Amino acid sequence: MTATATPLDIVRTEVDRALSEFVDRRRPLFADPALGPVLAAAEDLLAGGKRLRPGFCYWGWRGAGGGDDPAIFNAAASLELLQASALVHDDVMDASDMRRGMPAAHRRFQALHERSGWRGSAEQFGEGAAILLGNLMLVWSGEMWRTSGLPDAALAAAEPVHDLMLTELMCGQYLDLLEQAHGESTFEGALRVALFKSGKYSVEHPLRLGLVLATQGTEPWIERLCVEYGQRVGIAFQLRDDVLGVFGDPAETGKPAGDDLREGKRTMLIARTLAAANPAQADVVRSHLGDPDLDAEGVSRLRQVIAETGALVECEEMIKRYVDEALASLDDAPITEEARRALADLAVLATSRRA
Amino acid sequence: MTATATPLDIVRTEVDRALSEFVDRRRPLFADPALGPVLAAAEDLLAGGKRLRPGFCYWGWRGAGGGDDPAIFNAAASLELLQASALVHDDVMDASDMRRGMPAAHRRFQALHERSGWRGSAEQFGEGAAILLGNLMLVWSGEMWRTSGLPDAALAAAEPVHDLMLTELMCGQYLDLLEQAHGESTFEGALRVALFKSGKYSVEHPLRLGLVLATQGTEPWIERLCVEYGQRVGIAFQLRDDVLGVFGDPAETGKPAGDDLREGKRTMLIARTLAAANPAQADVVRSHLGDPDLDAEGVSRLRQVIAETGALVECEEMIKRYVDEALASLDDAPITEEARRALADLAVLATSRRA
Repeated sequence: MTATATPLDIVRTEVDRALSEFVDRRRPLFADPALGPVLAAAEDLLAGGKRLRPGFCYWGWRGAGGGDDPAIFNAAASLELLQASALVHDDVMDASDMRRGMPAAHRRFQALHERSGWRGSAEQFGEGAAILLGNLMLVWSGEMWRTSGLPDAALAAAEPVHDLMLTELMCGQYLDLLEQAHGESTFEGALRVALFKSGKYSVEHPLRLGLVLATQGTEPWIERLCVEYGQRVGIAFQLRDDVLGVFGDPAETGKPAGDDLREGKRTMLIARTLAAANPAQADVVRSHLGDPDLDAEGVSRLRQVIAETGALVECEEMIKRYVDEALASLDDAPITEEARRALADLAVLATSRRA
Repeated sequence: MTATATPLDIVRTEVDRALSEFVDRRRPLFADPALGPVLAAAEDLLAGGKRLRPGFCYWGWRGAGGGDDPAIFNAAASLELLQASALVHDDVMDASDMRRGMPAAHRRFQALHERSGWRGSAEQFGEGAAILLGNLMLVWSGEMWRTSGLPDAALAAAEPVHDLMLTELMCGQYLDLLEQAHGESTFEGALRVALFKSGKYSVEHPLRLGLVLATQGTEPWIERLCVEYGQRVGIAFQLRDDVLGVFGDPAETGKPAGDDLREGKRTMLIARTLAAANPAQADVVRSHLGDPDLDAEGVSRLRQVIAETGALVECEEMIKRYVDEALASLDDAPITEEARRALADLAVLATSRRA
């Protein structure tokens, strides 16, 4: 292993292959040139992504004794389709302009409409096309999962987990909309939403899927590992996302600087900031957070308040504590040594300072 | 049988039961009162609907020798979840206010936001919530299909049909957006979109699913029946929808009078109108169609032009011809006599003057 090798290396290679093969098999359905932009948008979206969710699924599978079967990579890769679908719809819901350093899907289709001089509202066309693109990737995710080539008994055992993940994802995203609509929220409220919206489906459920696929059942140690490692890494992952959404480098996050601030996202980081703010600091947050025209100076002032209240340090400490506890929980799990090391590395990768 | 008995009677009863049971089993996931409005919106949507798609699926199954197993009703009912999902997303994409005589889902959530005095844009909240509600019903549709209780071999045989239906539905809806954006379209263009967007997934694919589930394979006669009966009834169904969208009684369509005209839908009916219009008539269409503020008088003028060009009569004649040909194709199909009569009745029901 070289110094830069990570447990995601093999996952990236195999997930890229699996996604390419899956899309290639569906290419004939897009023979109509009018459908070209839909397929191109899907391919561009799938080319990005850190492959974290497939990583947790694959290393869960390996940890419980699964082998290096191409089928597990197909199943794991389907989680990238699900994630791409969620991002496309999220960007419509948040009216975000950028994603992964490129125009968000709805803006891309809006630009196609404008360039082509078509009739009607370009914005409405862009949103409609993005809703459909997200739907397509959502149904493809299910199709890729079921046609992965894994044994029927494995898929049958994992089906309830997979179904629950999908319902929880949609409900979690709705709770997130509500949280933004309710305005100032408690840390506990923000944490609960983070867990349901992102934590569970980014870490816990992918890991559980891999473990259940390999064992074709659920054993108490699997549940324990998913809660003690999976939920903690999931929350730390979301805390890191909160921090990157405010302090991240656009070159790494693929989003404009301070985008979460402009959108007024009610994150755990913001909840901690407001809980610790003095009246003057709280005024800065209330007057700037969610201002769609927030400029660089406004971003800078908000960042300063978030740092000065101690919320940033608090979140960094929480991330460290959640990850430390998650790593400790790996010690007792009856998984292979290789997977134990990989899951430890993944926990750090998923929650480290880089995007 | 009484005079009003139709082949949809048993389908309605059993599909209602299947949907209620499915939703009831998921109710514990919505224990959080904040999620109540999501479940309530889903239930209200599922209470409506003519159950046509389950009807074609069920009678395909019965025609190919399938019995009165509760499992087929579960599988068939899943098509109502798919349809409800498509309607919710459609209404967001078209910015429609009404559906089935009630506020469209996004307007319902917008009203919840306004009533509650929440922060941010009520409209954006409504759209976001509706996108998620549609997603939830889309994933539930797949879940209900797979957990219907039908034999694994039957589900495996029908899986490629089911997967193709979903991809074609999303692509067809995109082509529909394009058709609206391109403006004036040929009848052939409008027909192709109608077939992909609606015809195939309303009639042909549900019928094919039932036939393939029962035979656990595809035989040449199934393909022939799906094309010769299914596609024709599907096109006639969409032609009827075009006519109702302009001339339908709001009490029956559940949409305001002339809603399709206000939205500027480029239907087969409109394509025929423009093809046959003299310059003065074409002017009326071009100046009124797609005017969001179109009033009762404008609706009336457009209706008059559509009738005067002969397009309305032409569409009625096409509906009759497609249905007659579809009925004739039933004669040679090796299906049960009961199913032959039921499919004949369904073709008429799906394309009759009432909504």
